[in-house]
Amino acid sequence: MRLQPIFDIAEICAQKGVKEAILCPGSRCAPLTLAFTRHDKIQTRTISDERSAAFIALGIALATSNPVVLICTSGSAAYNFAPAIAEAYFQNIPLIVITADRPKEWIDQLDGQTIRQANLYGSHVVGYFELPQDFENMDSQWYINRIVNEAINLSKGTTAGPVHINVPLREPLYPNASEQISFSKDVRIISEEKTSNTIAHDRLTELRKSFESLPKVVLVVGQSRPNSGLAEKLQHFSKANHVPIVTDIVSNQHCIDDVIAHSDLILAHRKQDLKKALQPDLLITMGKSVVSKNLKLYLREYAPKQHWHIQESGEVADTFKSLTQIIRSSPLEFLEQFGAIVSKSQFESQKRENFSRLWQAEEHRVQRSINEYFSKTELSEFHLVREVLTRLPANAPVHLANSMAVRYAIFIGLDSRQNGIKIFCNRGTSGIDGCTSTTIGHSLSTDELTFLITGDMAFFYDRNAFWHNYKLSNLRIVVLNNHGGAIFKMIDGPGNVPEAEEYFVTNQKLTVRSLAQEFDFDYLKLDSLKKVKNLLKDFMEPDGRTKILEIETSSESAQKTIEEFKEHIRKSHEA
Amino acid sequence: MRLQPIFDIAEICAQKGVKEAILCPGSRCAPLTLAFTRHDKIQTRTISDERSAAFIALGIALATSNPVVLICTSGSAAYNFAPAIAEAYFQNIPLIVITADRPKEWIDQLDGQTIRQANLYGSHVVGYFELPQDFENMDSQWYINRIVNEAINLSKGTTAGPVHINVPLREPLYPNASEQISFSKDVRIISEEKTSNTIAHDRLTELRKSFESLPKVVLVVGQSRPNSGLAEKLQHFSKANHVPIVTDIVSNQHCIDDVIAHSDLILAHRKQDLKKALQPDLLITMGKSVVSKNLKLYLREYAPKQHWHIQESGEVADTFKSLTQIIRSSPLEFLEQFGAIVSKSQFESQKRENFSRLWQAEEHRVQRSINEYFSKTELSEFHLVREVLTRLPANAPVHLANSMAVRYAIFIGLDSRQNGIKIFCNRGTSGIDGCTSTTIGHSLSTDELTFLITGDMAFFYDRNAFWHNYKLSNLRIVVLNNHGGAIFKMIDGPGNVPEAEEYFVTNQKLTVRSLAQEFDFDYLKLDSLKKVKNLLKDFMEPDGRTKILEIETSSESAQKTIEEFKEHIRKSHEA
Repeated sequence: MRLQPIFDIAEICAQKGVKEAILCPGSRCAPLTLAFTRHDKIQTRTISDERSAAFIALGIALATSNPVVLICTSGSAAYNFAPAIAEAYFQNIPLIVITADRPKEWIDQLDGQTIRQANLYGSHVVGYFELPQDFENMDSQWYINRIVNEAINLSKGTTAGPVHINVPLREPLYPNASEQISFSKDVRIISEEKTSNTIAHDRLTELRKSFESLPKVVLVVGQSRPNSGLAEKLQHFSKANHVPIVTDIVSNQHCIDDVIAHSDLILAHRKQDLKKALQPDLLITMGKSVVSKNLKLYLREYAPKQHWHIQESGEVADTFKSLTQIIRSSPLEFLEQFGAIVSKSQFESQKRENFSRLWQAEEHRVQRSINEYFSKTELSEFHLVREVLTRLPANAPVHLANSMAVRYAIFIGLDSRQNGIKIFCNRGTSGIDGCTSTTIGHSLSTDELTFLITGDMAFFYDRNAFWHNYKLSNLRIVVLNNHGGAIFKMIDGPGNVPEAEEYFVTNQKLTVRSLAQEFDFDYLKLDSLKKVKNLLKDFMEPDGRTKILEIETSSESAQKTIEEFKEHIRKSHEA
Repeated sequence: MRLQPIFDIAEICAQKGVKEAILCPGSRCAPLTLAFTRHDKIQTRTISDERSAAFIALGIALATSNPVVLICTSGSAAYNFAPAIAEAYFQNIPLIVITADRPKEWIDQLDGQTIRQANLYGSHVVGYFELPQDFENMDSQWYINRIVNEAINLSKGTTAGPVHINVPLREPLYPNASEQISFSKDVRIISEEKTSNTIAHDRLTELRKSFESLPKVVLVVGQSRPNSGLAEKLQHFSKANHVPIVTDIVSNQHCIDDVIAHSDLILAHRKQDLKKALQPDLLITMGKSVVSKNLKLYLREYAPKQHWHIQESGEVADTFKSLTQIIRSSPLEFLEQFGAIVSKSQFESQKRENFSRLWQAEEHRVQRSINEYFSKTELSEFHLVREVLTRLPANAPVHLANSMAVRYAIFIGLDSRQNGIKIFCNRGTSGIDGCTSTTIGHSLSTDELTFLITGDMAFFYDRNAFWHNYKLSNLRIVVLNNHGGAIFKMIDGPGNVPEAEEYFVTNQKLTVRSLAQEFDFDYLKLDSLKKVKNLLKDFMEPDGRTKILEIETSSESAQKTIEEFKEHIRKSHEA
């Protein structure tokens, strides 16, 4: 059959372990749609809004740590994938994006649904490929097989990410009604072995010498996927060497004892002498972006003498303007190798311990101050986030939307006993454009109740996340509806200009009730502190219904709450 | 003031005639937002979903034939503009897209809302520019002024289209509360004069000779903006030289007497001898894409000896595989110059007249057959489209969504007396992603009742078109809700595969009622033929309310109607 090499893309994907594909409706992509839907090893779903579809695919890939195939027809459909592709690129999430296209000679000939799809996503993919459009020649068939293998290998390489395969397709695009699609079971598979990076012994020794000469060490973990092995190693390293582990909630290291989870609030401290005392000589970092602006500003101002960044491959960011040493190793392997050699050595232990205790004392003080604040506060969206985070079921995946939801959660943090909780947030591009869709992709891949805490701007922006026919019975969404981008009131600048309300906060007027009705979701509205306990009990009930809990407030009130909270913390600094 | 060169972008835009800007909320773009909102010559609106925002800007530019500024913050926001930018590119609609960006040195440093914005829209812009991020140096200030001038000139050049100016901005981004923004009234303006293309006399003579030697001439007008001057010239040329003018509804030439508006149905004819008789020796084309697939297939099979395409500048498509002569002139100028010289000449007039009469006879026969069909049909979405098109107020702009809505309208056509009606359709990329937003942009720019005829897929895809606080009192939307992409049942192929319902038609379940309630729009539901007249009377009433009229049917029923209609026309061919 003429289209056999195209059908076999599904077979190669399946044999290389792909288990899920998200398809968007269209005609040009029909051979791909049919191949994937008819392949019994791949689960397919169809989503009509390509922007949501791509974020749903990203959510599935996040949940399963496995590449997900994403297919659309030719034309602007492909451009609607772009926001999710950029997010996947900066978060190193494997997506195999397959866009159908007109044959080359038909580009720019005024045919419908035709744009210039070559290199459409620019440098936001780890690989771009275009299949040959004529594949009678055996070399072309070899080429297609090779490209698909290469693309999948790239997508899940050490620098994982989205790959784009553009597929020009000639008509006819559909088999006859009686024709069966079969797959070539003997398709060639090219596997790529991953190796571990071993640091040479003499280099380890040199690193150890540096480490020993610098008693004040801080280890910062940026955004990381949940990984209990890493948390264990970090805890051991921290204890053995008196190194404070500084994290955000998105670092997924809350289960480490004595972790520093509130650096943003600690470093809001005005006292220069304290800041000076907390300054590291050696900064070790791993993971991706750090949400806390205070931490970033602090480390840039109070720069360490040395800054080692641990990253297996790919471009390395100089987030703190202090980078001196890139170590090409996975964080886990680094901690194993370096931890083994360094903890055996003898060195100035007391100084290290004092330094570490200083960070911990600050963490405990801030933690006490936070608890104090919440013991007497009134109902607010901030309060609700805390109630939700505290009552999460044991193994819940929790997605935090940009921008205020993730900030609230960072102020609050998780308890070290909540070690099954997994935190996700689209911090690759920090967009609000796909937070709900990403969560839905995740919820489709697990039986656990899957949570999203989001603001109204992110929620309504991505409302087409719900526009499909798949059951979302384990989905739980908390919408903090302050009718606009309250964050713009909380950052300096926009609050001072008369245009703030219309052009920054935007004053959106919708509430969630109507949307919940439209999609037959359970709608819970929190309007009194007294109801919190009962409402959350209902909300956490795994009874097969999709549930949305809304709290409605104003951007003024949200702003006031956070100002009061910060003021409360500030006073504790000065007490 | 440090940001003066950035503020002055608004002044240059205003002095060069820009009157409207669409702003999307964000912080990095604050200096641009403030400059444009505070400029008293430019009307600004804020739209939160960048995808809708960009199509709304496109709609305003379409309505006003004037460049519209479109501003967003850094990060994935900019990628959400992409579908509309591609549409603007292929429809030659002037947009001045200004994206705020982090300073260069902060790209890839894990800061929030940072992607790689350089050349983000690839070859879908007519120009890409990046402003310098430091502009203390006078040469940098000269550079910024020059870039903005160049970009605006390009956007409205003979090959008009979107331009992209990327603007890296350093903090602080906000002026102090007390600071005023002023504009430099003496900004330098670079104007670009448009000239007309005169065809040299000896070339005109040669063209005339060719024309005279080829008695069977057909002139096809692809998608064109409404232009009564062009219609007049075309009618004169057609009458004087017996040249049938073949159009789609999107050609906006329905007011020409004896125009051939139903080529798609005429050429569905099976009789080879008729098709042979209708074959032109010389095909003259102008305008952009042609919707009718039958017309394209026919002209490719029954190719003319010569094919002249009239286009002032830019790439020329070989849509019919027969192009032999590109004439670099605007259609209006060509008809003036060539019409003047050719109509005075003597040539074989009878043969021309017979050929032209043959096309007209077919048009009249098909038109009679269409009228006959509608005289006895039952209620259907197709029928509703006809009722709406017939009862439009005199000067209504009408947007047709992709894909079925525009096809229905092409089958039906407009009456030559409806010469004030202006038809629009996003045929640049033929996407469903922004049809509603485009219409809303148009409705914001006129006091006329502004219509959209759309299917449920296009309608719900772009529902964020309504998510803002601007009144849409002159907006009238007809939603043909057949609960899915019924078009997939009407084209060959998908109908035959078992996956059709889920993966091609998609079976979306929403109706418009809930959305209308959410946004406080008047909701009219048509469920019986008897009610049509009264409902449409209410619908057309300019009473300051936004109105949505929905007809609910199934994809099966929509498919059946069109099959019956085509069968009816086919029988008339064979009678």
